[in-house]
Amino acid sequence: MLSFASDYTEGAHPQVLKRLCETNLEQLSGYGTDPYCESAKQKIKAVIGKPGADVFLLTGGTQTNQIVIDTVLGACEGVICADTGHIACHEAGAIEYTGRKVLPVAQTEGKIAAETVEAYLQSFYADDNHDHMVFPGMVYISHPTEYGTLYSLAELTALAAVCRRYEIPLYLDGARLGYGLMSAGTDVTIADVAELCDVFYIGGTKVGALCGEAVVFPRGNAPKRFFTSIKQHGALLAKGRLLGVQFDALFTDGLYFAASRHAIEQSDKLRKLFAEKNYQYFIETVTNQVFIVLENRKMEELARSVSFSFWERIDTDHTVVRFATSWATTDEQLAALESLL
Amino acid sequence: MLSFASDYTEGAHPQVLKRLCETNLEQLSGYGTDPYCESAKQKIKAVIGKPGADVFLLTGGTQTNQIVIDTVLGACEGVICADTGHIACHEAGAIEYTGRKVLPVAQTEGKIAAETVEAYLQSFYADDNHDHMVFPGMVYISHPTEYGTLYSLAELTALAAVCRRYEIPLYLDGARLGYGLMSAGTDVTIADVAELCDVFYIGGTKVGALCGEAVVFPRGNAPKRFFTSIKQHGALLAKGRLLGVQFDALFTDGLYFAASRHAIEQSDKLRKLFAEKNYQYFIETVTNQVFIVLENRKMEELARSVSFSFWERIDTDHTVVRFATSWATTDEQLAALESLL
Amino acid sequence: MLSFASDYTEGAHPQVLKRLCETNLEQLSGYGTDPYCESAKQKIKAVIGKPGADVFLLTGGTQTNQIVIDTVLGACEGVICADTGHIACHEAGAIEYTGRKVLPVAQTEGKIAAETVEAYLQSFYADDNHDHMVFPGMVYISHPTEYGTLYSLAELTALAAVCRRYEIPLYLDGARLGYGLMSAGTDVTIADVAELCDVFYIGGTKVGALCGEAVVFPRGNAPKRFFTSIKQHGALLAKGRLLGVQFDALFTDGLYFAASRHAIEQSDKLRKLFAEKNYQYFIETVTNQVFIVLENRKMEELARSVSFSFWERIDTDHTVVRFATSWATTDEQLAALESLL
Amino acid sequence: MLSFASDYTEGAHPQVLKRLCETNLEQLSGYGTDPYCESAKQKIKAVIGKPGADVFLLTGGTQTNQIVIDTVLGACEGVICADTGHIACHEAGAIEYTGRKVLPVAQTEGKIAAETVEAYLQSFYADDNHDHMVFPGMVYISHPTEYGTLYSLAELTALAAVCRRYEIPLYLDGARLGYGLMSAGTDVTIADVAELCDVFYIGGTKVGALCGEAVVFPRGNAPKRFFTSIKQHGALLAKGRLLGVQFDALFTDGLYFAASRHAIEQSDKLRKLFAEKNYQYFIETVTNQVFIVLENRKMEELARSVSFSFWERIDTDHTVVRFATSWATTDEQLAALESLL
Repeated sequence: MLSFASDYTEGAHPQVLKRLCETNLEQLSGYGTDPYCESAKQKIKAVIGKPGADVFLLTGGTQTNQIVIDTVLGACEGVICADTGHIACHEAGAIEYTGRKVLPVAQTEGKIAAETVEAYLQSFYADDNHDHMVFPGMVYISHPTEYGTLYSLAELTALAAVCRRYEIPLYLDGARLGYGLMSAGTDVTIADVAELCDVFYIGGTKVGALCGEAVVFPRGNAPKRFFTSIKQHGALLAKGRLLGVQFDALFTDGLYFAASRHAIEQSDKLRKLFAEKNYQYFIETVTNQVFIVLENRKMEELARSVSFSFWERIDTDHTVVRFATSWATTDEQLAALESLL
Repeated sequence: MLSFASDYTEGAHPQVLKRLCETNLEQLSGYGTDPYCESAKQKIKAVIGKPGADVFLLTGGTQTNQIVIDTVLGACEGVICADTGHIACHEAGAIEYTGRKVLPVAQTEGKIAAETVEAYLQSFYADDNHDHMVFPGMVYISHPTEYGTLYSLAELTALAAVCRRYEIPLYLDGARLGYGLMSAGTDVTIADVAELCDVFYIGGTKVGALCGEAVVFPRGNAPKRFFTSIKQHGALLAKGRLLGVQFDALFTDGLYFAASRHAIEQSDKLRKLFAEKNYQYFIETVTNQVFIVLENRKMEELARSVSFSFWERIDTDHTVVRFATSWATTDEQLAALESLL
Repeated sequence: MLSFASDYTEGAHPQVLKRLCETNLEQLSGYGTDPYCESAKQKIKAVIGKPGADVFLLTGGTQTNQIVIDTVLGACEGVICADTGHIACHEAGAIEYTGRKVLPVAQTEGKIAAETVEAYLQSFYADDNHDHMVFPGMVYISHPTEYGTLYSLAELTALAAVCRRYEIPLYLDGARLGYGLMSAGTDVTIADVAELCDVFYIGGTKVGALCGEAVVFPRGNAPKRFFTSIKQHGALLAKGRLLGVQFDALFTDGLYFAASRHAIEQSDKLRKLFAEKNYQYFIETVTNQVFIVLENRKMEELARSVSFSFWERIDTDHTVVRFATSWATTDEQLAALESLL
Repeated sequence: MLSFASDYTEGAHPQVLKRLCETNLEQLSGYGTDPYCESAKQKIKAVIGKPGADVFLLTGGTQTNQIVIDTVLGACEGVICADTGHIACHEAGAIEYTGRKVLPVAQTEGKIAAETVEAYLQSFYADDNHDHMVFPGMVYISHPTEYGTLYSLAELTALAAVCRRYEIPLYLDGARLGYGLMSAGTDVTIADVAELCDVFYIGGTKVGALCGEAVVFPRGNAPKRFFTSIKQHGALLAKGRLLGVQFDALFTDGLYFAASRHAIEQSDKLRKLFAEKNYQYFIETVTNQVFIVLENRKMEELARSVSFSFWERIDTDHTVVRFATSWATTDEQLAALESLL
């Protein structure tokens, strides 16, 4: 069946898979010490313009959030996060599992404002009882957000400024970073991300890899013994090559960006399609996720021929659904969808 | 360079990789809900003869040990383990990280005897202070062990009997299970493992997969919400297909066993080679790991032309090293090694 | 200086201290196995009308919340709590420290409604993604609440009914339970608490003890190995007598209730005082905590002669402050305060 | 019945209890901010000769070990400890509960040698795989040990030297420190302890207090936010005065040392008694714990008239038992015991 359910319905980008096949019988050392991991890290450092960065390759997004947040936070610290943030809602308590509190704050379309963070921090330190409370020790944002929206460079810069003023790191969850960077509607580059954030990850799973996320500490500021922490969290792959070869392929000849751009082009077409048919947007996005409000009857009718994601119920008759494109979305799929709308 | 360093130096078995390629562009649902995961589970249940088993696919060995032990243990319980056991020594404290104590006991060539476990349990409950201590709540064994040795069916049966008498589960770490099952020197079948253990895993990473371990609760006895626990530990892959397709391939037409048998055949040749050249064994094994005592001068000489694993220093002049074969080891590699010995 | 800052500014009720002195040189066994602990537990079971209850004596409130919540919750479960609840705000993340998520919900004057809890539970189970989320596994309420308010019997009954329908335990934090039970404005008895809750604690620290909270599982439903869990959380006192003698004294001849009633009588006088002087209440309470809105100038003036607690800023000119009475509050102290108002 | 079962069978030293009574109705601020806590800390700093020390008052020994070890250890670190150490055996896994591994090493009569620690550290760093293992991050010793033995100044100095060479802290569990310091057989002063250790605690519970242990970071080297960590571990008392008044009394006019000396004098008499009656020592101690080997028949006979502690079974006919004296042991009790031997 036709599917726009998510950006992880296919396997790997063919070019990534090709490299896995080509290197398959090479005998390589384990645990990320192989030359492909090294090459991938070098290419990532080059593309973000931070030769002194620390780069680590992990397997999945929740795993990455859990390990980064747990190792970066200090004693009695929690992480400020949009109340719609992935770590606050949909990671089964993976952050709390490691003993860390998520500190949710209000958001707009998935984004938190520098002012919101500053107000939280001011109010925290103004409270005489704050020694009996969880210290805000990090700000977590996702870019694109869970609603497919993007921070502007000005917004990101303002957030980073607040974080630096209070000396807490800014962490950017880039599970779909490529789609954010290639969107026409953004003024944020990957170099900006590396400059403004203290740690971020470049999502692979949703952008062309079978699995894999590249964690970047742009100023060589990885926590002490991060490698062993990965092992301690059960996240170290014996065949680190699986991640190394994939990221090496993704960052060769700009594949990561090209694949992301393709998804954005397809989502632009998708948006045009919905607009022509007068569908109503729930949130206007410029990335690869498109949120549409459907009458329930229409939703059920469509669901017979195409997969999409249920997002949230609006009222008794209407529902928000998500259509996502990816590096793999074809024009044929879009044409097939058009005929159903 | 020629390498016998480990059984995870190559990527995936070609047949596994082929299936990843063939299914790559199929649009599949995420998080292990795809038909390949389902098919893999059905095939595993069939091969172990337990249609009511619960099967889950995870990514790596330490991760699997961490999640299984953490979710199976009850309040204030720890896990009995050989003092040489992987979880006791080489998992960076992943078990303790989740709040659980490893309770090491004496072993012989990596194996723990039923008598040792029984003595531990008797002595624990005979101690009036045991309410101030960590309760033994599980027995962990590896098969093959970290020394490449195997439990006999009688030994395994005796261990299971003690566990049942004390009502604690027996957990078998089968990171290299295939190599154990295909060894000429064993009387233990996979059906025996499923019958005698309360939980075990079938290792994929070291037996032909890029990554992946299949956890089996043979009597449908998975802990409540095990799926959510996987997520909470950061171990749930969005593209569960990566594991499903691989295990489906490994358990189609007996590939898992054929690949394992090949490794054993090559290790038998390897043993013959070493014997002919009068090398001294550290431990006599029948699985794919061969432990040899080398004079340090010889070790350094060999190391220039072939990779192997340093195991432990015996005295100032001698060192134990490990040579491992795998599903990928060729006769050409053995011939090349022979010329170096 | 005159102080109404809290209900824990003095040491122990004189009758409690007297018993500590009288029993001081008796040689008693440790870890709560002495006859005073036993006697205290029997008296508590009698007063709540639950002869089959399990009773444990702990040292402090945050400790009690941490241990009860951690041991009662099941796999991947969190605890629903008012967003103003003590565990959500002022326990330094003690709940999350043990790996458990606090699930905050909206409240009114510190109380959560049965409807709010039911809506949360319905919405949770209606969400197709709930297997990726933290399961609501308990409802935590405080009685009196952090705002000195009380649940009515009808409200408590409704909450208990929702909890039973969804098979999750209802836990009542009774740090100031005595003050709640002795208030003129309540229709809730301690027997009601024992009947409706699945676990609760009778606060000692704030009601006449030097330290100590009595945890009650009214239906003999203590989690397995709760004693060892206390030890594992570092909360087991060698000289358990310290808690046993105090609770034995508090539950002899109704001292716990008499001492609480005294505090309520004094707070009623305090309320009368404030009313006569036309002070404005922030929240109308019937327990031993009185919340007043003060002009900042007046607040600073008063603060020179009497201690009270800062609660929260209302606007640039007004502040909420708390005056608390206790078993130790004298008429002389009230007269001294009157002269300052 | 006559009891030599332990040094915590009585309540508080009468002088300590007197001060609790005298200060009982003073209105004091909470959470350790009262003047008695401050005074106690000043007196402790003076007596150890470290005016810049950080001192914190906690409630019990396991709690103290748990919090100190958890907050002092860094990423992926565990604590080296005698395999007979209290944290390794009798704290119900309280250390592992916080995610930390206890690293047991061989001991003699409860003591670990500097050479043992050095060998462990050398071997750890010599292992190429140590990045996959738990890093040794602290050395824990008890003084007196669990066997009542004492480190000599030379032994302590050697341990401290190894720790400094490897830059890991030395932590001394002084649950019975007073008894160790007042023993005739020691050349270690409290100033030596403060000089050689990086953190230690002065036990109150077993040396005259109802409860309480004073943690000392002699060089002002308390971990960041140690106060909030205490709260987060559920260990912060609202009425901190309970600890402050007791330690203030214990460190006024040398009461801590006088009470300890009394226990030692009584244990010296006890040793003389046993020697005169030709009882056999299990271990020769100079502190307040005396370990005797008894024929089982004699043991049962004695047990009818006097309480003592079962320690361990030696063979089918003989058992090790412990007799302990304390600040409370009287000559009458010794005379009564003599008549039974």
